[in-house]
Amino acid sequence: MNSLRNHAVLLLSCPDRRGIVASVSQFIYEHKGNIVHADQYTDTEKGQFFMRIEWEMNGFDLERQEMSKAFGSLARSFQVDWQLYFTDDVPNMAIFVSKASHCLYEILLRHGAGEFVTNIKLIIGNHPDLSPIAKTFGIPFYVFPINSQTKMTVEKKELALLKEHNIDLIVLARYMQILTPQFISHYPSCIINIHHSFLPAFAGSHPYRQARERGVKVIGATSHYVTGELDAGPIIEQDVIRVTHRDSIEDLIYKGRDIEKIVFSRAIKLHLENRILVYGNKTIVFSS
Amino acid sequence: MNSLRNHAVLLLSCPDRRGIVASVSQFIYEHKGNIVHADQYTDTEKGQFFMRIEWEMNGFDLERQEMSKAFGSLARSFQVDWQLYFTDDVPNMAIFVSKASHCLYEILLRHGAGEFVTNIKLIIGNHPDLSPIAKTFGIPFYVFPINSQTKMTVEKKELALLKEHNIDLIVLARYMQILTPQFISHYPSCIINIHHSFLPAFAGSHPYRQARERGVKVIGATSHYVTGELDAGPIIEQDVIRVTHRDSIEDLIYKGRDIEKIVFSRAIKLHLENRILVYGNKTIVFSS
Amino acid sequence: MNSLRNHAVLLLSCPDRRGIVASVSQFIYEHKGNIVHADQYTDTEKGQFFMRIEWEMNGFDLERQEMSKAFGSLARSFQVDWQLYFTDDVPNMAIFVSKASHCLYEILLRHGAGEFVTNIKLIIGNHPDLSPIAKTFGIPFYVFPINSQTKMTVEKKELALLKEHNIDLIVLARYMQILTPQFISHYPSCIINIHHSFLPAFAGSHPYRQARERGVKVIGATSHYVTGELDAGPIIEQDVIRVTHRDSIEDLIYKGRDIEKIVFSRAIKLHLENRILVYGNKTIVFSS
Amino acid sequence: MNSLRNHAVLLLSCPDRRGIVASVSQFIYEHKGNIVHADQYTDTEKGQFFMRIEWEMNGFDLERQEMSKAFGSLARSFQVDWQLYFTDDVPNMAIFVSKASHCLYEILLRHGAGEFVTNIKLIIGNHPDLSPIAKTFGIPFYVFPINSQTKMTVEKKELALLKEHNIDLIVLARYMQILTPQFISHYPSCIINIHHSFLPAFAGSHPYRQARERGVKVIGATSHYVTGELDAGPIIEQDVIRVTHRDSIEDLIYKGRDIEKIVFSRAIKLHLENRILVYGNKTIVFSS
Repeated sequence: MNSLRNHAVLLLSCPDRRGIVASVSQFIYEHKGNIVHADQYTDTEKGQFFMRIEWEMNGFDLERQEMSKAFGSLARSFQVDWQLYFTDDVPNMAIFVSKASHCLYEILLRHGAGEFVTNIKLIIGNHPDLSPIAKTFGIPFYVFPINSQTKMTVEKKELALLKEHNIDLIVLARYMQILTPQFISHYPSCIINIHHSFLPAFAGSHPYRQARERGVKVIGATSHYVTGELDAGPIIEQDVIRVTHRDSIEDLIYKGRDIEKIVFSRAIKLHLENRILVYGNKTIVFSS
Repeated sequence: MNSLRNHAVLLLSCPDRRGIVASVSQFIYEHKGNIVHADQYTDTEKGQFFMRIEWEMNGFDLERQEMSKAFGSLARSFQVDWQLYFTDDVPNMAIFVSKASHCLYEILLRHGAGEFVTNIKLIIGNHPDLSPIAKTFGIPFYVFPINSQTKMTVEKKELALLKEHNIDLIVLARYMQILTPQFISHYPSCIINIHHSFLPAFAGSHPYRQARERGVKVIGATSHYVTGELDAGPIIEQDVIRVTHRDSIEDLIYKGRDIEKIVFSRAIKLHLENRILVYGNKTIVFSS
Repeated sequence: MNSLRNHAVLLLSCPDRRGIVASVSQFIYEHKGNIVHADQYTDTEKGQFFMRIEWEMNGFDLERQEMSKAFGSLARSFQVDWQLYFTDDVPNMAIFVSKASHCLYEILLRHGAGEFVTNIKLIIGNHPDLSPIAKTFGIPFYVFPINSQTKMTVEKKELALLKEHNIDLIVLARYMQILTPQFISHYPSCIINIHHSFLPAFAGSHPYRQARERGVKVIGATSHYVTGELDAGPIIEQDVIRVTHRDSIEDLIYKGRDIEKIVFSRAIKLHLENRILVYGNKTIVFSS
Repeated sequence: MNSLRNHAVLLLSCPDRRGIVASVSQFIYEHKGNIVHADQYTDTEKGQFFMRIEWEMNGFDLERQEMSKAFGSLARSFQVDWQLYFTDDVPNMAIFVSKASHCLYEILLRHGAGEFVTNIKLIIGNHPDLSPIAKTFGIPFYVFPINSQTKMTVEKKELALLKEHNIDLIVLARYMQILTPQFISHYPSCIINIHHSFLPAFAGSHPYRQARERGVKVIGATSHYVTGELDAGPIIEQDVIRVTHRDSIEDLIYKGRDIEKIVFSRAIKLHLENRILVYGNKTIVFSS
C-alpha cells in the first residue's frame, strides 16, 4: 500500500552488461539505504536491461539534491537512462472528463480511500455536467467547451492552467475529445487514457457497438499512455469480461463500465507508484 | 453431462409472435414429452425469436420419422426454421491437423473421458507428424500433403473421404491450411476452427507475434465457424489469459496453448450438444 | 437492463410433471401476453421443477388483481408455489452500514446510474460516520448505536422504521453487527449480506487475516441471504481475486474491496430483477 | 521457458539487513556472472528477507563444487539459509496415481511439450488401471496395492524404489491414498498434491459433493506441499471456476478436472524452476 513512507524509487534502463545490479545495489548500500523492492527485466533480443529498485530514505546518508551527482558517474559508466522518485514527493494530477461519471467517481473514491497517493488539483470538463461531483469532493472544476475550430485555442488555455498547477499526470476519465499531438507533446508518457475495448480490437468510436456487431463473447477495456496516434499508445493494463448474445449495446455499456473502472484504476496506481517504464511503444510494468 | 440419454432437441427461429412458446410446449405435452431444458431469446431490434427446447423421448408418443410431419403445420403457421436432433443419434466427427499436437490430444482425451458424444471417424493431416497419436487412440489417420497447386485436387479427395464416413462436423485442430470457399460450402456451420487470438484482433498469421509487438497485456483464443472469409466467421467462444512484458513469443505460445485447448473444447461441446444457432454472422449460444 | 418496462415476472416451483411448461405458457398466451424471457431448472434427484417466466403486460387482458384468482386453479392442479412480480412495482430498499463506505458508495452510484430499479428509502448506521454520504445523495440516514445489551430494543425500533417505510429488501453493506434470529424472521430471503471471503472458508471475523495466515493464493467475497446461522445462508454470488505472498493484510483489504463491491452488486441486482429462487439452503439463479 | 540453459539459481533467506542484496550481487559480479533474474521479498513484520537470483554460468569463474565454499563466508555473515540449483542439473520426478487419468496425462503431455524440465523416472499406482498410459509414454509403471494393514510395509518398498531412482520430486496426480507422516518426512517440501477444492474450504473427502451441498457459485483446486496434516500443507497455487445450480456432481467433477490440471501444472512448473521458498506453513513464489 501507498502510505507516505519516505522511500526512493529508481527506474533505470541501460545496455545489458555484467555488474549493473551489483553496482547499483552497492551504491545504495554504501550510502546506508535498505532495499525494500527490486525487480529487473532484460530484453535479451535487444540486449537492453531495465530495473526498478526502491529503498528506505530513513538512514540514507545522501541528501536528495546530492543524489544526481553521486549517482551520475555510475550512470555514465553503464550508459544508464534513469529517473528518480521519492514517495513523499506527491505528484499532482488533473482529470479530464466529458459527461460519463463512472470513471471520475472511481478515481475520487479510491483517492479518498487512500489508494492513490496524488494531489488531485483540478478537473477539466468539455461539458459542465460533472461539475456537481467535483464540488462534492471539493475539487476545482473548469469547463472548457471545445470544438474543432476552437481546439487549438482551448488547449493553450488548458496547458496554461495545467502548468500553473504543476500537473504531473493527466488522466482522461472517458474524456470524449481527441487531444492534439502538440498538446500531448507537453506530457510524454504522462497522459493516461481508458479505452472501452481490448485494443487493438475496436479502436476509435463506438467500440461496444463494433463489439456487438462482430458478435464477440468477451469485451474489454484498455488503459494506455496517449500518443499522437489515436488509441495506439503503449498499453499499461487490459482486462475483459464475458458477454453473450443476450447483451444489448446498453448491457455492454453497463458491463463495460465495471471493467473500465478497474483497468483504469490499476493503470493510474501503477503510474503513481512509478512502476512503469515505457520502452518503444510498449510498457514494462514492475508490478508488486 | 452428455450421456446417451434419449432426448430430443429442437432448435428453432421465427418472427417474434405471441403464442409460439405456448404452441411448441403444448405440442410436446400433447405427445407426452417431458421438457427438461428450454431457453429462448428474442432479438427485439429485428423482431426475431429463437428457442432451444429439449425433452425426454421416453414416453413420447410420436416416432422420429413422424415428427417432421406432425410438427410441420405448427412450424408453417409460425414461419419457423427448425432443426431437430436426438441425443442418441451420435454425430460423426473428423479432425484436421498439421503438426501441433495439443488441440488434438485435448479432443481425444476429452472424448475418451466421455465429455464429447461423437464418433471420431478419422483424422486428416497435411503432415504425417501426428500419425502416432492417432494410432495410440486407434483412429484412422490420413495424410494429404497440400500446396497451392494441389489444393483443389486434394480437397476433392478429402471431401470424398468425409462423405464416405458421413461426417457431420469437422474440427480444425490447429490445421495450418486455409480451406477453399468451395470446400467450406459443403459444411455450412459445421466446421469449427480455433484461432489463437481474441478476434477481431490479430487475425491471420502469427497472432502471438502480432500480440507481442503491440504489447498487449492479455492474449486470447477464439473458436468460430469457418466461412469463406478468413478468421471472420461466427464466434462461438472466446477467452483470454494475462501476459506481461516478460513473456517472449515462446512464452505466449506456451500460455496460449492452454487457452486454445479450453476455448476449442467448449466450442466443440456446445456444437455437439446442439446449443448453437447461427444468426447472421453471430451465434446464439444456449449454454446449460 | 432494468428500465421501467411493464412486465410480469412469475417465479414458480412444483413437483416435476409433464405439462407444466405447456400449461403456464398457454395461460399467458390465452390472456395475450408475449413471453420475453423463460428459464427453467429441474432438480432430477428430488423431482422438483423451477421456472422463471417474464412477459409483457402491454396487451395482457387480465388486471393485476385478477391474476391470482385466474392463475390459482392452474397452480393448484400442479401444486405450484408461486410469486408474481411486476417490473413497474418498484421495491423499497434499506441499507445498513457501519463505518466502511465502499459498498455503500457502490450501491448509491449504481442506483444513480439506473442499474438498480429500487427506491432507496433510508440508510441505517450503528455509527454516524457515513451520514455525510447519505446527505450528498439525499437519502435519510438514521443512527442506531447498538451493543449486546441494547440489541433487542434497538432492533425493535429499526423494525418499526422499516415497516413504516414498507421496506422489501435490506442490504447489509459491510454492517458489522449480527442481526438476531428474531429480526431476520421478519425478512426471510430479503436480507442480503456481503461477506469478505469465499465461504465456507473463513466465516466469522477477520476473514482477510485468516486468509493471510493460511497463505491462500486467492481471496474472495460471498453475497448471501441472511439466516439465523452466521455466514451460512443461501449463497447468491461469489467471486475471487488473486493474491500473493507480498500482500499484507492491508493489501488484502484493498484488493478485497473491489471484489466485495462487484459480488454484492451482482447479488442485489439479481434479487431486484426477481431472478432468485431459494431452495433449501441454496439458490437457483436464473441469470439473464 | 525452460530450455537447458546453463544457469545458476540461488534461493536464500536471512534476517533483513542492509547490504544483503549488494553483497550477493557483488559476489556474482566478481565471479563474472550475468544476473538474468532477481526478485526479493521482505516480511517486514518478522524482519525476514527472501531472495531468488538467477545468473548465467557461461563465463562464471567458479566451478560448481567451489561455490559452496566461496559463498559460505558471505552466507555466514548474513546468517543466510540458502539452496543452489543449476538448470542443467535436471531433477528426477515420480508420479503417484490411482485411477483418474486426467492429471497424469496433463503431466506427460506438458513434459513431452518441453514445459517441464525433469526426468520422469517412474509412475507408481495403487491400482493397475493407468499402466497402459505409462506404457504409451515409455515410462516404467509400478503397482503397489495398499490398504491400512499393508501401508507401512508398502511405503517402505516405495521409498526404496524412489531412493534407487534418486527421486527429487513426488507429484500426487489424484493419488487417493494418504501418505504416512513417516513417508512424508523423507521428502520435506518435495511432495506436491492437487486437492480438488479451494482450500481451506472442503478439505478431506468428496469436496465436490461438499461444494454442491453448500451451494457455492465457484469451485476450485489447490496445489500444495504435503505435510503430516491432511490438506493443510503450504499452498503453492489455487484457482477457481464458476458453477451454477444446474451443475450436478458429475458436472462439477467434469468442470473441476480442467482447473485441477492447470493448477497442478503451474505448481509443478514453479517447483521445477526453483521459484518456491517454503516459509512456515506458507510459500513465497517468485513467479516469472
